Amino acid sequence: MIEKLIAKIKKTNAPIVVGLDPMLSYVPDQIVKKSFAEYGETLEGAADAIWQFNKEIVDATCDLIPAVKPQIAMYEQFGIEGLKAFKKTVDYCHEKDLVVIGDIKRGDIGSTSAAYAAGHLGKVQVGSQVFRGFDEDFVTVNPYLGTDGVKPFVDICKEEKKGLFILVKTSNPSSGEFQDRLIDGKPLYEHVAEKVAAWGEELMGEDYSYIGAVVGATYPEIGKALRKVMPKSFILVPGYGAQGGRGKDLTHYFNEDGLGAIVNSSRGIIAAYKQEAYAKFGAEHFADASRQAVLDMIDDISSALR
Amino acid sequence: MIEKLIAKIKKTNAPIVVGLDPMLSYVPDQIVKKSFAEYGETLEGAADAIWQFNKEIVDATCDLIPAVKPQIAMYEQFGIEGLKAFKKTVDYCHEKDLVVIGDIKRGDIGSTSAAYAAGHLGKVQVGSQVFRGFDEDFVTVNPYLGTDGVKPFVDICKEEKKGLFILVKTSNPSSGEFQDRLIDGKPLYEHVAEKVAAWGEELMGEDYSYIGAVVGATYPEIGKALRKVMPKSFILVPGYGAQGGRGKDLTHYFNEDGLGAIVNSSRGIIAAYKQEAYAKFGAEHFADASRQAVLDMIDDISSALR
Repeated sequence: MIEKLIAKIKKTNAPIVVGLDPMLSYVPDQIVKKSFAEYGETLEGAADAIWQFNKEIVDATCDLIPAVKPQIAMYEQFGIEGLKAFKKTVDYCHEKDLVVIGDIKRGDIGSTSAAYAAGHLGKVQVGSQVFRGFDEDFVTVNPYLGTDGVKPFVDICKEEKKGLFILVKTSNPSSGEFQDRLIDGKPLYEHVAEKVAAWGEELMGEDYSYIGAVVGATYPEIGKALRKVMPKSFILVPGYGAQGGRGKDLTHYFNEDGLGAIVNSSRGIIAAYKQEAYAKFGAEHFADASRQAVLDMIDDISSALR
Repeated sequence: MIEKLIAKIKKTNAPIVVGLDPMLSYVPDQIVKKSFAEYGETLEGAADAIWQFNKEIVDATCDLIPAVKPQIAMYEQFGIEGLKAFKKTVDYCHEKDLVVIGDIKRGDIGSTSAAYAAGHLGKVQVGSQVFRGFDEDFVTVNPYLGTDGVKPFVDICKEEKKGLFILVKTSNPSSGEFQDRLIDGKPLYEHVAEKVAAWGEELMGEDYSYIGAVVGATYPEIGKALRKVMPKSFILVPGYGAQGGRGKDLTHYFNEDGLGAIVNSSRGIIAAYKQEAYAKFGAEHFADASRQAVLDMIDDISSALR
């Protein structure tokens, strides 16, 4: 799957990923009204609105981008109905041949991590039958539990030719509280990054590993340092746009081959029509606003990389 | 909800929690056959088998115990159908007046943590209506992202009078890889424990905080040290039984009032009938085996605490 991600990045010339993290407040009235008319003001109605919103954005942007990153929390807040919308979104993005990064940040002790890995990347056996639960292509994983919490994910990635992005340095303001603390003279995130590089060696594609890392756009100096610690790992970079990251800050997340990083924008793309810069599209044409925001983001990052 | 947990511990004289972490392989043939007969060898069939299994165990043990801890990964592996069984289990345990600790180990940046917290502890607004997604009483939270990843959970706990158990020192063999590393002369888990104590001060019940910690039974010396770092935090103790922890090792997880800890056993209770000690019950009476295993666990821990 890392090869597919790389091929699609090369083809689209867009090392970006659209974060499908819908809040109900992002969804334009015309969609919400229609969903509520059909399903009522219910969890089903909310989930339908989110799914219809996603679908229009995917339709409007899928030719421009290699990948999407649905954030499962935004669906999970609506319970079972929300998770059905997550699954529908994953399936639809597969139909559109997009690489799907499930932003699930799971991580537990061995057998439990194995269950998460089976549900999100692999398959389960039921009697004589085999089924796939959510079936993303990559997922994000939290490393706090150490190797035996991560290895079950790696093992299933080996079987399925799928991949991971492991949290190393997150984009939020208080990420440094634990992640930046020095251990033997090096910040915790660097120790985690070294493990990511080691885990990644076990599962190499042609030039890059199937095991990548998450490093926030909001800490460009750290991104620069970590690029060298994990030369063969793709870096998933959240925090672009709404959280403050800009293309010019992100050049050092990439290797000299122009690869090695994929930058996520969520709100900045999916709720573009709410920004002044794209207000002219109006709520009616929110998906066109998202398309324009994708084009602008590609341009921002390409210019910086040139 | 911490008051309810304490009241129930006092009433049952059992500072224990049954981990409802079913593998399909734990479910006796008679249940699996019935579920497959009704729903086929499908995800729905697997989910039904797990739900029926849980229900019998809850029925057989609910008068003896204060709380259950369903591990969501075991349900999530079966996709949407599995999560429906999780929800059914949570609802049924509420009917039986058990405190429900959702072992979800979520944690993300602020707005995303808020969505998880809304979905698992709080509520969501849909138009003029309000709904609850999964509605557990407590959830487990991963602290790797720092305060702004945890605070949204704390905020919703304040509103809902619900609680958290934050991962401090996990029970798995490689938990030390990051958690034990020294920062300013103290292990990372101790820094996290100090934060748990601080977050907990914001949300105190009568004697204990709504904000607790997870400390594995497999590291009793660490449990002893952390008890002092977080005197007002309840400690959820996984790793008893199948993972190796024993009552006599766990006395220091408790305070002098005999409270302050709640010990989880999952496999040791729910798959008791598969152990030699309970083989006499047979698969037919698996729930009676679980009841006996609960009684034995209460006895083991009470003797140790005496």
